[in-house]
Amino acid sequence: MQQRIQRLRAALATGGLPALLVSAPASRRYLSGFTGSYGCLLITPEAALVLTDGRYVVQVAQQAPGFALREVVNPGRPLPEVIAAAASELGLHGLAFESAHTTVAEHAKLVAALGGAMELLPSEGMVEGLRELKDADELATLRRAAAITDAALAAVLPQLRPEQREREAAWMLEVALREAGAEAVSFAIIVAAGPNAALPHHFPGDGLLGAGRPIVIDMGARLDGYHADLTRTITLGPPDARFHEIYAIVLEAQRRAIAGLRAGALSSDVDALAREHITAAGYGPQFGHGLGHGVGLDIHEAPGLRRAPPNGAGAPLRAGMVTSVEPGIYLEGWGGVRIEDLVLVTKDGSELLSHAPKVGQASENL
Amino acid sequence: MQQRIQRLRAALATGGLPALLVSAPASRRYLSGFTGSYGCLLITPEAALVLTDGRYVVQVAQQAPGFALREVVNPGRPLPEVIAAAASELGLHGLAFESAHTTVAEHAKLVAALGGAMELLPSEGMVEGLRELKDADELATLRRAAAITDAALAAVLPQLRPEQREREAAWMLEVALREAGAEAVSFAIIVAAGPNAALPHHFPGDGLLGAGRPIVIDMGARLDGYHADLTRTITLGPPDARFHEIYAIVLEAQRRAIAGLRAGALSSDVDALAREHITAAGYGPQFGHGLGHGVGLDIHEAPGLRRAPPNGAGAPLRAGMVTSVEPGIYLEGWGGVRIEDLVLVTKDGSELLSHAPKVGQASENL
Repeated sequence: MQQRIQRLRAALATGGLPALLVSAPASRRYLSGFTGSYGCLLITPEAALVLTDGRYVVQVAQQAPGFALREVVNPGRPLPEVIAAAASELGLHGLAFESAHTTVAEHAKLVAALGGAMELLPSEGMVEGLRELKDADELATLRRAAAITDAALAAVLPQLRPEQREREAAWMLEVALREAGAEAVSFAIIVAAGPNAALPHHFPGDGLLGAGRPIVIDMGARLDGYHADLTRTITLGPPDARFHEIYAIVLEAQRRAIAGLRAGALSSDVDALAREHITAAGYGPQFGHGLGHGVGLDIHEAPGLRRAPPNGAGAPLRAGMVTSVEPGIYLEGWGGVRIEDLVLVTKDGSELLSHAPKVGQASENL
Repeated sequence: MQQRIQRLRAALATGGLPALLVSAPASRRYLSGFTGSYGCLLITPEAALVLTDGRYVVQVAQQAPGFALREVVNPGRPLPEVIAAAASELGLHGLAFESAHTTVAEHAKLVAALGGAMELLPSEGMVEGLRELKDADELATLRRAAAITDAALAAVLPQLRPEQREREAAWMLEVALREAGAEAVSFAIIVAAGPNAALPHHFPGDGLLGAGRPIVIDMGARLDGYHADLTRTITLGPPDARFHEIYAIVLEAQRRAIAGLRAGALSSDVDALAREHITAAGYGPQFGHGLGHGVGLDIHEAPGLRRAPPNGAGAPLRAGMVTSVEPGIYLEGWGGVRIEDLVLVTKDGSELLSHAPKVGQASENL
């Protein structure tokens, strides 16, 4: 934690910022260890404060021993006033805030509480920038989360049958994740069978898994706040010819993208490696999302692997980033195929964190 | 859904607002049925649009058939530009937005996309105000969610043993909730034993349940997006004298508050009914949170039952509101007691939606 705060202080100095108010829950946890659902941090070159309410007083002392606490009381001493009092006490003349994690209403209240005493400086991506590069502890946790996810999928796949419903399969996977050590699921597990597989974010329902139809399974273990994210597409019994065709295209698109991942590569170029393959096969419009996203204390975080903005390009990747690589093709009425792995960017290439088999053919349990 | 949109249009007319951009996920779902993780609604006196990205095109058609879709493409056609184009196409001259659900960064991008073509009007609590009053469908769902929660707790309590860990107990409860029909848990289940029970939002860990110590269990079933919320405090085997003392105070505080709940009562007066009893018993500072919160598509929503602001008072409650009533006393080093039920406010009083027993004494399974 202390190293992370030092990196943030260095970034503040580089940006000429006097202090940062940290509001994003994952960034709060990253810098302090505090996991509560409410509050913010105030980090200056010398001080580190947690501002939260009475529910978390004991917890802050346990989780964030290096931080001083300022208590919010609702009503009476609301958060904006506690921030203003702390900033004044610390002699600050300006205060940066996270504009992507501060609402217009919160900002207005903070302006009122500060009463013109100091400047509020919008800032974006400051802690997210630090969080992009995973340290050894974070990588170890992500590897364990990915291994739990692989193991849970492997345990459940042989038990799936065409007459089961999507929601049953999702629950079997969730139980397997938790029994393998996940503290929670990374997100609501997706099991999407047949035409439902054309919905990238389908919520599992009463639909049957069915025989020979594509079944998209998207799942992950959360461990100590870190998220795994894995997608496999299977069929129960022999699929149709279209499945073989689409699966091979998606698998090759993913292979090409992973082969192009390395420190220095542009995120948009990696997206293009997959997208151009899918487009050349005639399914460009059916790949309606980005190639991947960073994963860590948030399930979606920086960097993003996506198309270049008009007249622009994505940022260069750096060693230590962890990203999903998840091309997909979705055909309304038929279904879809998505294949997703977690990948660590290294100096010379990349390393897969997930190891679940990609058989490229149907599971045989009928 | 159509009735809800009509109520919103009436509220827009009353407020003199030309149109509302709805960003809060629960409000989006409330008005449209769309459950995706991304996007917003644009509601005008005549039109109803969903703006989201390619992942949800098929889903919007299924879930929100009365809404027209405008598709966001990242990069290329980002959300602020799609909003601006839709507003222009609809001939709007002004646009209200939810200032409590719009970040400063999003607002700045929207201002840039609109390019001065129309006024952006901050608005707070507009859809939340509609959502405070539950309709018959919502009440039926909340009743079922509360019943599932009661049943799951009843199934697990006889299986708890002092040598089990908090996390094991939390998982047993989660399995019971899901097997009883919950689509998910309302929030991460709290099982906090002994001194951990002094942390109102403790995350279950390796601590043992133990014999004779307070064990706070806070749990709920989510069903069709609606949340139940229930807390009981138990001990395994005979507790100490302090438990009997504290439990009786909290139970009586809750009884007094529920007795005072009715349409027309001020939310702050209901809080005071519980708080004054706890304060008179000498534990006022150890009740460090509000008495309760509205529950519905969000686990915490309007109304709030809490202390009056300085020189002010809470709002009058209305028939059809559903709120938690959850006084607690937390003693660092010893533990805590919280008792929580879901209650429907009625014209003449209130009706309990949760029915789990409050024995006021220890469970006997050792």
